[in-house]
Amino acid sequence: MKIVVAQLNYIVGDFAGNTSKIINVIDQHGQSADLIVFSELCVSGYYPKDLLHRPGFIEAQNNALQKIIQSTEGAKAAIVLGYVRHNPFGGKPFLNSLSLIENGQTLFTYDKQLLPTYGVFDEARHFEMGTTPGTFVWRGQRLGFLVCEDAWENSMQPLYKRDPVALLETSDLDLVVSINASPYNIYKHQTRRGLVANIAKRCNAPMVYVNQVGGMDELVFDGNSLIYDAKGNCYFDGARFKENIEAVDLEMATGLDIRQQDEYQMICDQLVTGLKDYCKKTGFKKVVIGSSGGIDSAVTIALAVLALGPSNVVAVTMPSKYSSAGSVDDSQDLCDALKVELVHASIKSTFDAEVIAYTEAFGEPPSSLAQENLQARIRGQRLMTYSNSSGAMVVSTGNKTEMSVGYCTLYGDMAGGVSLLADLYKLQVYSLARYLNKSVFGIEAIPQAIIDKEPSAELAPDQIDSDALPPYDQLDAYLHLLLERDLLTESEVKVHTETAKKLSKEDKDKVKSLLDRNEYKRRQAAPVIRVNRRSFGADRQIPLTTKFTT
Amino acid sequence: MKIVVAQLNYIVGDFAGNTSKIINVIDQHGQSADLIVFSELCVSGYYPKDLLHRPGFIEAQNNALQKIIQSTEGAKAAIVLGYVRHNPFGGKPFLNSLSLIENGQTLFTYDKQLLPTYGVFDEARHFEMGTTPGTFVWRGQRLGFLVCEDAWENSMQPLYKRDPVALLETSDLDLVVSINASPYNIYKHQTRRGLVANIAKRCNAPMVYVNQVGGMDELVFDGNSLIYDAKGNCYFDGARFKENIEAVDLEMATGLDIRQQDEYQMICDQLVTGLKDYCKKTGFKKVVIGSSGGIDSAVTIALAVLALGPSNVVAVTMPSKYSSAGSVDDSQDLCDALKVELVHASIKSTFDAEVIAYTEAFGEPPSSLAQENLQARIRGQRLMTYSNSSGAMVVSTGNKTEMSVGYCTLYGDMAGGVSLLADLYKLQVYSLARYLNKSVFGIEAIPQAIIDKEPSAELAPDQIDSDALPPYDQLDAYLHLLLERDLLTESEVKVHTETAKKLSKEDKDKVKSLLDRNEYKRRQAAPVIRVNRRSFGADRQIPLTTKFTT
Repeated sequence: MKIVVAQLNYIVGDFAGNTSKIINVIDQHGQSADLIVFSELCVSGYYPKDLLHRPGFIEAQNNALQKIIQSTEGAKAAIVLGYVRHNPFGGKPFLNSLSLIENGQTLFTYDKQLLPTYGVFDEARHFEMGTTPGTFVWRGQRLGFLVCEDAWENSMQPLYKRDPVALLETSDLDLVVSINASPYNIYKHQTRRGLVANIAKRCNAPMVYVNQVGGMDELVFDGNSLIYDAKGNCYFDGARFKENIEAVDLEMATGLDIRQQDEYQMICDQLVTGLKDYCKKTGFKKVVIGSSGGIDSAVTIALAVLALGPSNVVAVTMPSKYSSAGSVDDSQDLCDALKVELVHASIKSTFDAEVIAYTEAFGEPPSSLAQENLQARIRGQRLMTYSNSSGAMVVSTGNKTEMSVGYCTLYGDMAGGVSLLADLYKLQVYSLARYLNKSVFGIEAIPQAIIDKEPSAELAPDQIDSDALPPYDQLDAYLHLLLERDLLTESEVKVHTETAKKLSKEDKDKVKSLLDRNEYKRRQAAPVIRVNRRSFGADRQIPLTTKFTT
Repeated sequence: MKIVVAQLNYIVGDFAGNTSKIINVIDQHGQSADLIVFSELCVSGYYPKDLLHRPGFIEAQNNALQKIIQSTEGAKAAIVLGYVRHNPFGGKPFLNSLSLIENGQTLFTYDKQLLPTYGVFDEARHFEMGTTPGTFVWRGQRLGFLVCEDAWENSMQPLYKRDPVALLETSDLDLVVSINASPYNIYKHQTRRGLVANIAKRCNAPMVYVNQVGGMDELVFDGNSLIYDAKGNCYFDGARFKENIEAVDLEMATGLDIRQQDEYQMICDQLVTGLKDYCKKTGFKKVVIGSSGGIDSAVTIALAVLALGPSNVVAVTMPSKYSSAGSVDDSQDLCDALKVELVHASIKSTFDAEVIAYTEAFGEPPSSLAQENLQARIRGQRLMTYSNSSGAMVVSTGNKTEMSVGYCTLYGDMAGGVSLLADLYKLQVYSLARYLNKSVFGIEAIPQAIIDKEPSAELAPDQIDSDALPPYDQLDAYLHLLLERDLLTESEVKVHTETAKKLSKEDKDKVKSLLDRNEYKRRQAAPVIRVNRRSFGADRQIPLTTKFTT
């Protein structure tokens, strides 16, 4: 059987664009392939959220689906694809469905049984679960169908009351077809590969796993579609963070060696894809980034250059009286290396004018903490003024560690259309910087001086981060445990626990308290591209009015 | 049977405080009453969100529950209360449960069957649904139990696959006990009253409906607990937006006349409670509010005075060169009437300094749109500087109409810890202003000049809102339809459709486009206290990277 894997980058609700991509593949491979497999909810793009309830959305999707069905008329290949269908039974209004379509006819329809409603997923908000196992005999072959989460039930820690894979296992299948919209997070490609190989073995049949690719708000789908045979050999290992349309003849295929991949390449590609798609899908061509001379803004600027090209990135250095001369010089070296325009725009005069006006009005100057935040807010405001004037989107540069402990200013350095590094712990930002220099740019694009310098917010005289915060290795380790412990591997928990042990009880209490007290800032943060297992935002929903702080 | 309705204001995760409130009621009424009824998830407070997964949370709740159970030892009264329990079956880790407890023993436990997962509700994220109807014979009486949403299934438009009320109907009950955490939105008290009366009739038994009260982030629970008899007579009509502990003897009770209530009294009480509880539960004692001289800030300041007292409210007038003298005078009159301190803090010098510094750095001045936003951002930043210096929380003043069409500045007038009017359409703000003057203050607390003046952002010369936006009556009507049509009554739809007809197709297209294009601003907005049927925030989840704009 010749199968075409159609791993495409969709835009939510772009029915014309999505349909045209799908029909192009059918036109191209319809006469040579047997089966073309698209991803979950590919007609609408995953995930439409409450657009599903907007009048006209489902009708527009159904019209698009009709066009796609018609395009299969006369083709040799059947197609499998995912879409939203009205629920004809009781319960929620929609089903997350898959159909096998051949020569203009829908032969078989299956409804997703497991609806992820945790982390970033919210499918029970819109969908009712299917109740019928997905098997169908087609051209003499018994096919078994799964939609994304259907494959993920873990019998050791059951989250659902049924296991669609267990229902397929005993069905004597010839092929398992799984359509997916599975966003990437760190190390997930390894887990996913193991999962697919395992299901193929359990069902004693080859398995085709097709994922969507591209950025959608906070999520980035990596693609990396897979085909495994019943013995656990990999027949296809699809491109990561790129569209990939490829025909695989199951009878002719041979096992591939698994590509080893640096995790920082995955993170780099993920963030670049996330930013590129966010801009493309919302209509921004350029971005503007504040360049402090520190590691976070340097890595953000470097990633933006990879996403949009240096001519579409503007960096702005905005020194205050507390900024070191080195900071401006380092920004200049960075921008020279990356061929990015650097605008010099001191905030001194505005800061002074504001402190005078404030003092006159309120009878006393702002507190020293307020003056620190004021510097950050003048910078945020200036970037937004440039954004409003030029149409460039502000990219915010803060990392996960500082977002956790509130070492960031709401409406200041937190300002932006998207927050690129806000799901990377501080040490991960350093690792990414080294990876970028070594393996992507091949030069010291991010100056060593920036990597080596003591981290500082430069908002007060001689201020360095370690005055206010524990050492970053210990802080990161402890935050890993506070924020993501249940999702880490045992060995990760062990390593982080070991490192976090070095923190005193006072430091731990302080970090926990800071984490809780700064929830209000994160509630108003720009969308955070998820990299680790649990990011701030929809992935972690904490009340603001709570007294639980343990 | 003598029943005590315990309508209390809980803080999420404040196990010591919540437990003490509950035990106080048991101590006070345990020897005189037969049954004391508390509300849904009262031990933890509704709704803990992902705190449910935090290590120690459930343990702390269970310890609190044990103390409560012990406190019933030797009491005559049994109690009914709601809490989270571990799910011993398959599926999600928790059940949203209710227990009947008597003399230190748990007699009966029932698990909520319908888990709301729409709008502001997200219970399927954490809970598995119960599958057993809630009936139990106690002291010779057959009780039927419901937890909140269990009562709301509508057989004409079924959202679930079961109807817990239908399961109780045929059980020959003596009493229906319903525990709730039902947040208020406009007109809901009428709907809820009809629902309770109807269930009592369907089950041919009296019904006790106990709700929690108080603010929790964006939601405000109104209390308004109810008792109805089997004939549809109201025996108890609990206080609104206040704690209320009251004993009702079912045998002695007589039907009450239903209180007629001005809807703007409900809205006023709701917003005052929402703000007061937000401050109290997060530890703020004072608020600071920018006073533009317009209707939104005037109403916000008036509500803040009702919530916190005039000495805990600071207003700041921050004129720019485009502000009319009248604006400052009107602010002064407002603050004089409300006995609120008004700080005069012109933004002219800071604005001028920033325009000069920006022009020098970028080679051209900010665009005129950017200069408008700059004024708003300097004001937002100044209020935040005052907040950081003084510990007062900024309350943001924008209304739902301007939030819808983006007639507001991100990080500018949108800055704040909470956004008080952001779920009130512009005309509702005017109605609330008139209600406040007439029925709350009894004086012209909000100067008539503010109510009468042409709305203006005063960010450009001679600017008035109607230059950029359609008339507010038509705009509000159309936005009602775009944002909440499926939740409005038929007559509301008819009225709004009639008014919106006056808009040209161009105006309608413009409004729709503005609504979609400004999603990114709302994603970063301060928490919006929900008043109407669907507010911005968790209640309405729209992707940012979408091309569906119909």
